[in-house]
Amino acid sequence: MQISELAEVTGVPLPTVKFYIREGLLPKGTPVSATRAEYGEGHSDRLRVISALASVPGLPIARMREILAIIDNWDDYGVIEAMGHAVAALPPYAAPSDARRGREDGASPEGPPPPQLTYAREAVAALGLTFDPEYPATRQLDDAITAVLGAGLAWTPDTAARYGASLRQLAENEVTPVPSMTARQSIEYAVLGTTLFEPVILAIRRLLHRHFAETAVEAPSQAPRATE
Amino acid sequence: MQISELAEVTGVPLPTVKFYIREGLLPKGTPVSATRAEYGEGHSDRLRVISALASVPGLPIARMREILAIIDNWDDYGVIEAMGHAVAALPPYAAPSDARRGREDGASPEGPPPPQLTYAREAVAALGLTFDPEYPATRQLDDAITAVLGAGLAWTPDTAARYGASLRQLAENEVTPVPSMTARQSIEYAVLGTTLFEPVILAIRRLLHRHFAETAVEAPSQAPRATE
Repeated sequence: MQISELAEVTGVPLPTVKFYIREGLLPKGTPVSATRAEYGEGHSDRLRVISALASVPGLPIARMREILAIIDNWDDYGVIEAMGHAVAALPPYAAPSDARRGREDGASPEGPPPPQLTYAREAVAALGLTFDPEYPATRQLDDAITAVLGAGLAWTPDTAARYGASLRQLAENEVTPVPSMTARQSIEYAVLGTTLFEPVILAIRRLLHRHFAETAVEAPSQAPRATE
Repeated sequence: MQISELAEVTGVPLPTVKFYIREGLLPKGTPVSATRAEYGEGHSDRLRVISALASVPGLPIARMREILAIIDNWDDYGVIEAMGHAVAALPPYAAPSDARRGREDGASPEGPPPPQLTYAREAVAALGLTFDPEYPATRQLDDAITAVLGAGLAWTPDTAARYGASLRQLAENEVTPVPSMTARQSIEYAVLGTTLFEPVILAIRRLLHRHFAETAVEAPSQAPRATE
């Protein structure tokens, strides 16, 4: 098909398709004459992945390019490694330096800063998983726990175990389709599923919070409510 | 105490404390002489909340000011409404316009755009919750589902019910401490707990994904794996 048909079939505006080609995200079509190039199903599939990545807030073009390159060259890594690298190119990026800066400038005044990734190490043990300091989510978790403790909120390895109990089934369900996919499909699915379902999960959590907060606050309380 | 003691006690650097005062986030101390002001426990409590908000990636000063104003004036709203408004001032902000733009420029070519919040309405019904189109998380959920469908990933109201089943206990546990708190404490807890535990949840989910993906991909597969 011609580039105009590619735009029509995928619902991506033609100028946007051309932009993706210029940025090297979408390969050029095969030239069939001086003025025409032919596009195939590979292009429309790729374009759908690019469009989905483009909808992720805070994902720069450079990171999109990185993710697409990992998908294209997955056999340099192996499937699991490729999935891990591709997911690691997704937001959040800022957490590590921020939280570490917080520790250094004394935002947590109680005692010396903990040895690196101690919180994550304890939490991962409580979750019953294998500790891998190189996996980006490990550092994300350590930074997230540091921020929780810095705000004076409660956190122990037991808290990790409790969250794990709720999230285990959810994560297992999400991975279920992977074995029936090709390597390429499974890496695309890992990237898109990881990032596009994050806001779904967080929105449902906020809706459930309100439901339970209404129940908790508006129910006639057993104990008299503390007043300010 | 003097402002320098306030900085020491809270672990917030003195220039940062002064910045928060200039920005109107932290009230000035009570003047006790021409050159000295006295700071109390109210100031150190407030400073801890400000520090925690400052650690939230993508939360602008203007939104911090808005959240603090809601905490201060909670009785203009009632506790539940104040919690909702304060949580609504947290990121994400970009999703609504982005996703809606996606629909308008034809990113979802299949049929006409759905009536507003249809996806969220169906999902909220499947979750067994009360539909409130004005609650910000409702729109967040609708936009998130729109992005999932736009990427060609599977979604039905049953999917919402499945996520709800996993997240219900998690959200209920998180709300448990609320009834024993003062109104101010519970709104602060809602804001900080909502935002600071989001990266914890997402990091644990990513760690569990890897665990289950390794199991799924590396286990000797029953069916021969599809190849590209």
